[in-house]
Amino acid sequence: MLTFESDYVEGAHPEILQRLIETNLVQVSGYGSDCFTESAKEKIRKACDCPQAQITMIAGGTQTNQLVIDTMLESFEGVVTASTGHIATHEAGAVEFSGHKCLTIPSHEGKMKAEELKDYLDTFFGDGNHEHMVFPGMVYITHPTEYGTIYTKKELKEISDVCHAYDLPLYLDGARMGYGLAAENTDVDLKTIAELTDVFYIGGTKVGALIGEAVVFTKNNQPSHFVTRVKQHGALLAKGRLIGIQFDVLFTDNLYFRIAEHAVSLAMKLKKALKDKGYRFLLESPTNQQFVILENSQMEELKKHVGFSFWEKVDDDHTAVRFATSWATTEENLEKLISLL
Amino acid sequence: MLTFESDYVEGAHPEILQRLIETNLVQVSGYGSDCFTESAKEKIRKACDCPQAQITMIAGGTQTNQLVIDTMLESFEGVVTASTGHIATHEAGAVEFSGHKCLTIPSHEGKMKAEELKDYLDTFFGDGNHEHMVFPGMVYITHPTEYGTIYTKKELKEISDVCHAYDLPLYLDGARMGYGLAAENTDVDLKTIAELTDVFYIGGTKVGALIGEAVVFTKNNQPSHFVTRVKQHGALLAKGRLIGIQFDVLFTDNLYFRIAEHAVSLAMKLKKALKDKGYRFLLESPTNQQFVILENSQMEELKKHVGFSFWEKVDDDHTAVRFATSWATTEENLEKLISLL
Amino acid sequence: MLTFESDYVEGAHPEILQRLIETNLVQVSGYGSDCFTESAKEKIRKACDCPQAQITMIAGGTQTNQLVIDTMLESFEGVVTASTGHIATHEAGAVEFSGHKCLTIPSHEGKMKAEELKDYLDTFFGDGNHEHMVFPGMVYITHPTEYGTIYTKKELKEISDVCHAYDLPLYLDGARMGYGLAAENTDVDLKTIAELTDVFYIGGTKVGALIGEAVVFTKNNQPSHFVTRVKQHGALLAKGRLIGIQFDVLFTDNLYFRIAEHAVSLAMKLKKALKDKGYRFLLESPTNQQFVILENSQMEELKKHVGFSFWEKVDDDHTAVRFATSWATTEENLEKLISLL
Amino acid sequence: MLTFESDYVEGAHPEILQRLIETNLVQVSGYGSDCFTESAKEKIRKACDCPQAQITMIAGGTQTNQLVIDTMLESFEGVVTASTGHIATHEAGAVEFSGHKCLTIPSHEGKMKAEELKDYLDTFFGDGNHEHMVFPGMVYITHPTEYGTIYTKKELKEISDVCHAYDLPLYLDGARMGYGLAAENTDVDLKTIAELTDVFYIGGTKVGALIGEAVVFTKNNQPSHFVTRVKQHGALLAKGRLIGIQFDVLFTDNLYFRIAEHAVSLAMKLKKALKDKGYRFLLESPTNQQFVILENSQMEELKKHVGFSFWEKVDDDHTAVRFATSWATTEENLEKLISLL
Repeated sequence: MLTFESDYVEGAHPEILQRLIETNLVQVSGYGSDCFTESAKEKIRKACDCPQAQITMIAGGTQTNQLVIDTMLESFEGVVTASTGHIATHEAGAVEFSGHKCLTIPSHEGKMKAEELKDYLDTFFGDGNHEHMVFPGMVYITHPTEYGTIYTKKELKEISDVCHAYDLPLYLDGARMGYGLAAENTDVDLKTIAELTDVFYIGGTKVGALIGEAVVFTKNNQPSHFVTRVKQHGALLAKGRLIGIQFDVLFTDNLYFRIAEHAVSLAMKLKKALKDKGYRFLLESPTNQQFVILENSQMEELKKHVGFSFWEKVDDDHTAVRFATSWATTEENLEKLISLL
Repeated sequence: MLTFESDYVEGAHPEILQRLIETNLVQVSGYGSDCFTESAKEKIRKACDCPQAQITMIAGGTQTNQLVIDTMLESFEGVVTASTGHIATHEAGAVEFSGHKCLTIPSHEGKMKAEELKDYLDTFFGDGNHEHMVFPGMVYITHPTEYGTIYTKKELKEISDVCHAYDLPLYLDGARMGYGLAAENTDVDLKTIAELTDVFYIGGTKVGALIGEAVVFTKNNQPSHFVTRVKQHGALLAKGRLIGIQFDVLFTDNLYFRIAEHAVSLAMKLKKALKDKGYRFLLESPTNQQFVILENSQMEELKKHVGFSFWEKVDDDHTAVRFATSWATTEENLEKLISLL
Repeated sequence: MLTFESDYVEGAHPEILQRLIETNLVQVSGYGSDCFTESAKEKIRKACDCPQAQITMIAGGTQTNQLVIDTMLESFEGVVTASTGHIATHEAGAVEFSGHKCLTIPSHEGKMKAEELKDYLDTFFGDGNHEHMVFPGMVYITHPTEYGTIYTKKELKEISDVCHAYDLPLYLDGARMGYGLAAENTDVDLKTIAELTDVFYIGGTKVGALIGEAVVFTKNNQPSHFVTRVKQHGALLAKGRLIGIQFDVLFTDNLYFRIAEHAVSLAMKLKKALKDKGYRFLLESPTNQQFVILENSQMEELKKHVGFSFWEKVDDDHTAVRFATSWATTEENLEKLISLL
Repeated sequence: MLTFESDYVEGAHPEILQRLIETNLVQVSGYGSDCFTESAKEKIRKACDCPQAQITMIAGGTQTNQLVIDTMLESFEGVVTASTGHIATHEAGAVEFSGHKCLTIPSHEGKMKAEELKDYLDTFFGDGNHEHMVFPGMVYITHPTEYGTIYTKKELKEISDVCHAYDLPLYLDGARMGYGLAAENTDVDLKTIAELTDVFYIGGTKVGALIGEAVVFTKNNQPSHFVTRVKQHGALLAKGRLIGIQFDVLFTDNLYFRIAEHAVSLAMKLKKALKDKGYRFLLESPTNQQFVILENSQMEELKKHVGFSFWEKVDDDHTAVRFATSWATTEENLEKLISLL
């Protein structure tokens, strides 16, 4: 049965598999010290226009979030996040497992507002004694957010400015970064992200790789002894080449961006078609995830023919569901989906 | 340059890559709930002759050890290990990171002795008050050990009996299990391991996979809510298929065992050739890792021509080095290595 | 300068000091195994009408909360609390330090509502997959709350019923429990608390002791090896007698209750006097903490003459401040405070 | 029944109780910000001849060790200790609970040797890659040790030099420090300790206080936000005065030293008397703990008349037992003990 359940229902982009085959017999050292990983890092540095970037390849997003947050925070500090942030909701407490609190501020369709962030931080760094409270030690945002929405360059700049006014690092979770960069009319590119954040990761798993996320420290600020810290978190792979090769391919000839553009363009086509048919959306998403409101009985009927994700109850009679596109989605299958709605 | 540095210098066995390609467009759900992973589990259950086995695929060995130990121990308990155990020496404190102490007993070429284990446990469960001490909560062994040595069935049975007399689970780290099972004259097979241990893992990364270890709970004793615990440790992969497919291939037509036999037979050939040439070994290893003692100047010369691992200083003039074989080692390259020595 | 800053500005009730002197030369074993601690436990069991109660004396409240929560939760579980709960706000992340998340629901003047608790729990234990979320593993309430408010017996019963319907333990933080039990018109007594909760602690530090909180497990549900767990948390005192003697005195001739009644009756006197003078209160507190709204300039003036706690900004011109009474507060000093307002 | 089981079987020195009574009604702020604590700190600074010392009062020794070690180490670092160190043996894994490994080196009657420490550290900071190992981040010693032995000034200096050559802080656990300072012929005084270590604690509980240990950072090296870190560990007492007053008394008119001298002089008397009677000792202890070897049947008989601690089995027929003296031990009771042996 056809499914639009998520952007990780298929394997990897064929060019990645092809390269795994070509390189299979090359003998290299382990733990990320291989030439493929080095090449990938160099290409990412260029794509970010950030020659000093310190880059590490990690298997998955939750692992990455736990690692970055735990190694950048002092033990008594917490991480500020919108209340809908992935770390605060759907990572099974991985951040708390490593001893840190998620400090939540309001979410606006997945995004935080610079002004609300500032107000929150003011309470700590202003008057009064907060010695008995968890101190904010970094700020976490997602781009695109869990709702497919994206920040504008101006919004990112404002958040970045607030963070730096309080000397807090800004961390951007880019599990689906490609789709954000490929959104119509966005003014945020990879260079902007490298400039405005202190650390971020480029999601591979959900943008055409089999596995892997590339963590980028942008300001010569990678925690000391980082390999040991990665190992301590159980996140160091013996065959580091597996992720290195994939990112090397993804950042060759703009494959990462081409994959994202393909998926976003199909998502926009879906949005337009459904709007034309009169469907309402939970919110306006410019990226590869679309949140459509269905009448419950229609949803039940649809389930028999196509896969999608339950998102949230809207009212007694309606439910928002998610359709996601990926590198593997075809025009043909998208048409099938549209015809079913 | 040719290298025998480790058994993870190449990619994956070609049959694995082939299957990744064949299945690439099949749409499946994430997080290990896919049909490939299910098929792999079923094959492993059969290979273990353990129909009730509860199996989970994890990316790497340190991750696996941290996860299994942390989720099976009560918070105040520690894990008993030989002093040379990987968890006690080369995992950067991943076990302590999750709050537990490694309780070390003597190592005999990497192995623990049942009698010494018993004596150690007796001190806790016998007379006297040990309320201020870390309680032993499980026993950890490696097979093969970090030194390539293996337990006999009798030794495993004795250790297992001691554990169970004290109601402690026995955990076997099988990062290189295949090579142990393929050792000449071993009487330990997978079924024996499943029978005598409470949990173990079958190493994939070092036995022909790109990545992945299969954790097997043998006694209906998998900790509750295991998926959530895996997620909390940052160890749940979105594209679970990646590991599932690999183990499905490894356990089809005995590929896992064929890979190991190939590597061990070449290692035995190396051992014989070097013994014939008069080389001494650090110890007798019946598996794919061979620890040869070289005169220091010879070692320096050899370095220019072939890769190997520094293991340990033997005396002022001699050093033990490790050569490892793998699925990808060829007769031709082995001959080259021998001719260099 | 006179102060009403908190209920821990003085030392201990004189009867406690007297007893410390009387018993000083008696030789007893350490770590809480002494006869004084045993006697205190027996008296508490009687006061709670809970013969099976398992009791442990701990030095302070945050220590106690961390210990109880960490040892009762599974590692992947969190604790549900009103958003204003002490553990979620003013314990510097002690709960997260031990690996657990505080799951917050709305606060109503410090209290949670059974219905909102039920709705929250329903989302986890109803339909759908919550494997990627932190599971609620216990419910935490404070009585009196951080705002001096108290639950009625009916409210406690409803919360308790919801907890038990989902098989979750209910934990009551009684840092100031005495003042709640001494509140006018309350229908909650110690026996009720022992009946409706699974574990609670009787606060000593803020109710006349020098130090110490008595943790009471009411349902034969104390975690195994509890002494070792206490030691592991750094919470086991060598001279356990120090806290044992104090609780023994506090639960002799109802001293604990007499102390609380004294403080509450003076607080009520303060409330009446200030209401008569036209002061507004932040909320209605029936216990020893009173939250009065002052005009800012008046607050500044008052500061010169008497100590109190800043509580929160009400608007640009007004601030809520806290006055607390204790065992040591005298009628005379209270009159002085009233005359200053 | 008379007991010499430990040095914490009685309450506090009478001068301490007297002062608690005198100060009982003085109103002071909480959490260690009171005038008594300030006065105590000032006296300790003088006694250490260390004007810049940063001092914090903590309830107990295990709490203190966990706090100091966890807050001074980076998350991937461990603490080096003699294998018999209290943290490695009898603190129920409190150090591991906070995520750190105890790295053990040989113990010589409780002491470590500078040369062996150096050899151990050399392996990390010399050649080779240790990225997969726990890094030594500080060195922990006890003075007196768990066996009552003490370091000479020269030994301390050598250990201190090794630590500082590798830029590692030296931490001295002084749970029984007073007895070490009062040992006959010792050349180690408090000033020496402050000079040679980076942080240490002065034990109160076992040297005449009801409770309390004073942590002293000697080199302006107290971790930032220390109050918050103390709170996060559950170690911040509301009535901080309780410990402050006690240390204020202990460091007035040399009470701390007078208490220790009294106990040590009685211990020496015991040692001489038993040697005269032909008893063997487990080792030579110059402090208040004496480890005497008894024939087993004699030990059983003695048990009926006097309390002592079982220490360790010496052989099938003999056992080492511990007798400890304290501020409260009288000549008369000591004579009774001697007469029983």
